[in-house]
Amino acid sequence: MIVLGIDPSSTSTGYGLIEEVRQRQYRYLDCGCIRPGAGLAFEDRLVFIYDQLVQLLTQCTPDAVAVESTFFGKDADAAAKLGQARGVILLAARKAGHPMAHYPPAEVKKAVVGHGRATKEQVRFMVCRLLALKELPRPLDASDALAIALCHCFQPGRHLPPPSSRRRPEVEALLQRVVRR
Amino acid sequence: MIVLGIDPSSTSTGYGLIEEVRQRQYRYLDCGCIRPGAGLAFEDRLVFIYDQLVQLLTQCTPDAVAVESTFFGKDADAAAKLGQARGVILLAARKAGHPMAHYPPAEVKKAVVGHGRATKEQVRFMVCRLLALKELPRPLDASDALAIALCHCFQPGRHLPPPSSRRRPEVEALLQRVVRR
Repeated sequence: MIVLGIDPSSTSTGYGLIEEVRQRQYRYLDCGCIRPGAGLAFEDRLVFIYDQLVQLLTQCTPDAVAVESTFFGKDADAAAKLGQARGVILLAARKAGHPMAHYPPAEVKKAVVGHGRATKEQVRFMVCRLLALKELPRPLDASDALAIALCHCFQPGRHLPPPSSRRRPEVEALLQRVVRR
Repeated sequence: MIVLGIDPSSTSTGYGLIEEVRQRQYRYLDCGCIRPGAGLAFEDRLVFIYDQLVQLLTQCTPDAVAVESTFFGKDADAAAKLGQARGVILLAARKAGHPMAHYPPAEVKKAVVGHGRATKEQVRFMVCRLLALKELPRPLDASDALAIALCHCFQPGRHLPPPSSRRRPEVEALLQRVVRR
């Protein structure tokens, strides 16, 4: 099972791709950030995020997409801005037909660190351990996205063997690339 | 000049299409609401809004799209939800290549009624007058969207409405009647 985790933001949307190779064993595939240019108009940022995500979904064809839930703080302005970015992310994933799941930040932190008030650095450290990475994934938005993907895999009833049908050539190529790194 | 006004919402996105036939003369073309089914998952609502809007933009090919700015109240939850709907609306309009403008609710109300705290019914009444409609446009989300389109036409540098139309005693009296209803 391949899972794409997404940490939405209008300035730096993190993504992290992992594979559950067998029960409770996870392999890192890819991670990074979608960063629209700071000089772009807000609408153009949304178009950039959408287009990049459509491209990513076409390349990695995940079995599920896990997205961090919107921030429910007191700052309505920030929530609205983040909401707009999240809207185009949900649209891209849904239009591509991927099953989706949503996890609030505290649940993601609890899943990978053990408590819901962990720092981003603690999350990154645990992501590094759980995926047996040699280096800390950077930037923090990308490690957050990997944590979201792990959180999805940790859900009860979700430990599934990788269906052989998912062993598509493009996935194999990506895996080979990752292994060679 | 054909202007499409949009009042974003995840449950009922209003749209209103008007044409500036000549200086300070506006013609009503169309209005309505995009209403995703209440039983749809949130992602499917966003897909519905996006697809409907893409279809509308293809049909009406406006010269400009005017969108109401996000609500900046204290309710971050509502702002985030509205933000997600607004995100896919901005995406659809930008991808179609239309010039866009954003107006906060108070500016729209001030432009068509004369003050920023007007009720939705007062806005509808003035929209009806300014577009010389025989009947009040329904529902209120649609008349709000027509008001947004008018607000765009009234901007400095574009053609301004006759200020007397908002100040005549009979108009004031009618507005008062609307308030009392």
